[in-house]
Amino acid sequence: MLRLVRLVVIAILLSPLAAFADDLIVKKQTFDMGAYTTVGGATIKDVKIGWEAAGTLNADKSNAILIAHFFSGTSHAFGKYQPDDKVAGYWDYLVGPGKVIDTNKYYVISSDTLVNLNVNAPNVVTTGPASINPDTGKPYGMSFPVVSIKDFVRVQKALIDSLGIKKLHAVMGASMGALQTYEWAASYPDNVERIIPVIGTPGGDPFLIAWLDVWAAPIKLDPNWNHGDYYGKTPPTEGLKAALKAVTIHANHWEWATKTFGMAWADPKKNPADAMDNQFKVEATLDQVAAARAATSDANSLLYLVKANQLAAADPDKIKTPALILYSPTDLVFYAPYVEENAKKIASHGTPVETMPLPGPNGHLNGVFAVGQAGDKIRAFLAK
Amino acid sequence: MLRLVRLVVIAILLSPLAAFADDLIVKKQTFDMGAYTTVGGATIKDVKIGWEAAGTLNADKSNAILIAHFFSGTSHAFGKYQPDDKVAGYWDYLVGPGKVIDTNKYYVISSDTLVNLNVNAPNVVTTGPASINPDTGKPYGMSFPVVSIKDFVRVQKALIDSLGIKKLHAVMGASMGALQTYEWAASYPDNVERIIPVIGTPGGDPFLIAWLDVWAAPIKLDPNWNHGDYYGKTPPTEGLKAALKAVTIHANHWEWATKTFGMAWADPKKNPADAMDNQFKVEATLDQVAAARAATSDANSLLYLVKANQLAAADPDKIKTPALILYSPTDLVFYAPYVEENAKKIASHGTPVETMPLPGPNGHLNGVFAVGQAGDKIRAFLAK
Repeated sequence: MLRLVRLVVIAILLSPLAAFADDLIVKKQTFDMGAYTTVGGATIKDVKIGWEAAGTLNADKSNAILIAHFFSGTSHAFGKYQPDDKVAGYWDYLVGPGKVIDTNKYYVISSDTLVNLNVNAPNVVTTGPASINPDTGKPYGMSFPVVSIKDFVRVQKALIDSLGIKKLHAVMGASMGALQTYEWAASYPDNVERIIPVIGTPGGDPFLIAWLDVWAAPIKLDPNWNHGDYYGKTPPTEGLKAALKAVTIHANHWEWATKTFGMAWADPKKNPADAMDNQFKVEATLDQVAAARAATSDANSLLYLVKANQLAAADPDKIKTPALILYSPTDLVFYAPYVEENAKKIASHGTPVETMPLPGPNGHLNGVFAVGQAGDKIRAFLAK
Repeated sequence: MLRLVRLVVIAILLSPLAAFADDLIVKKQTFDMGAYTTVGGATIKDVKIGWEAAGTLNADKSNAILIAHFFSGTSHAFGKYQPDDKVAGYWDYLVGPGKVIDTNKYYVISSDTLVNLNVNAPNVVTTGPASINPDTGKPYGMSFPVVSIKDFVRVQKALIDSLGIKKLHAVMGASMGALQTYEWAASYPDNVERIIPVIGTPGGDPFLIAWLDVWAAPIKLDPNWNHGDYYGKTPPTEGLKAALKAVTIHANHWEWATKTFGMAWADPKKNPADAMDNQFKVEATLDQVAAARAATSDANSLLYLVKANQLAAADPDKIKTPALILYSPTDLVFYAPYVEENAKKIASHGTPVETMPLPGPNGHLNGVFAVGQAGDKIRAFLAK
């Protein structure tokens, strides 16, 4: 009997391994574009970004879809690097053979942005304040030039050009990825056939500009930040953790917190009412999440991402690319009415625009976790 | 002709002076309750709080209304201290002779809470971490005991007792004032006839608990905070400013930011795209507001207020006091659906509950700036 139980347990444990054969395996590649001159006119030597792809580029190179990532994301949108990776890319449920974004039909590309946050993660390739300045042999720190969402898109365009792709079948992205998606349509109307901005607007939102300051503030208060000069020294980890805690909670929603934590204590023996340092579970969990994220992140890069997002300002009146706009009704970062207002502006010039809400308990993050409910709409839009 | 213009100008300039005769003048008084033992069992010696009042307490002491203040507020809810004060109390448009809360009928009291934020403001009397510990002759700092919203209410109850008032006609308050208002009904059902909680819930909201951490975090990162030991030294002003910036923006709304600032630059000569430190106007303005608020505020007190708010947990199922609940549909601090959910819980036991939304461009702050639209409802509710 015991032996049978053991066998069943082993069978259950092994069953995920059987699925590995179907897993999409992706490889990080590096696009080395040489010198790049920013929108602001600064030249950055030796710009490199990482990218990943799945599917096969067809003969006339007309089946490519580009996915742009969110603020704290990377190009790892789908697939695994190794069959035994514990976690696949964040939109793996959307992208793959036979999935909503079908890699049997489309060649799907995703790239790391400039000033990517996850400098210390394996498989991330980016150029930003943590990179070595070839002129000095030292990390740029805060001497790295200002870059904007438009710069991210220009570098992506160079990558797409390098692959010989003249026109993308679609550009898609969530949050900061949506900012890039709108910017693609505004900057390169002839090079993209359709856009799917998810949980985002074209930019130009002063409330978000101010919130981005709130995210960034703790980093500058950490004495280890040292005006950005901390490479090779003790980094401003406490400031970075506080910043990432703000980002994490802002991207979620009270429904999630209520359902997940209620008023549970972090330690059942330590009543939060008994001491200033005794925490509720929601506080401690967010601290743990922030600490885990901080381990692969770079504080200066967060500051540069804040600036890039503040400068996002694709003009909705200039967007002529057909759009499927997905948004979260409970989004606390990109407010649904503001998304809808921008959708109307784009549609007012005769551009075909569809919108669809993504309900769920996670606020902004419905646009990362819960896009599956728009699967049929995305399939149909891509097939148009 | 020039003489006539001058006379008209003088008449216009003088006209506000003529109105001074009608201004409500209030006086800060101090309630010295001696030793107070907290909900958690700690004894604080020599507890003092400030209070202000308008109107006349009637013979049977049945016409008193208590107003509890919000997180960054004080007892200065109505009136002026001096006829030439530039600004009156925050709800002066509601409270006064012939106004919605008519001081010809009601005796209206407002008191400073324990651990009040505005330690360095004139006319604020509070007991908290900046107070001198009689046992050591030095400020408490972080040795001050944890206090909760329930403690604030207990101290208010002692003040009310000291005035010989057995039953309040009403308790009313916005935001943290609403937390106190619900707590009054839960703790002292026999001592309050009706409650008007504005832009708040009874407490127990884990999402808000986590956000309060985000508000507090910058203070602890400021090296001048020094674990709360900064009195008589350089205080953690930069951390306090960042905390108050978070509070200020969280209490407002994207409609306000969009209408007030758009994408204007702080300095028309300094394009935010040109340098990391060049700001948009919305950023610079919030920094200025935060700096002004920091000048009268105390960092440790903000940490104690955060804790007190996190511990707010009046049980809606135990509230039997008739309630008029006012809320902002666009509130980002106390979410409207959560306010309504709590209103239903209270009503489910047969307690009369009315609710009314307060639309406006200021999110949470509609409950401070725009309560006038509920004037008729408040009048009628108070007259019931």
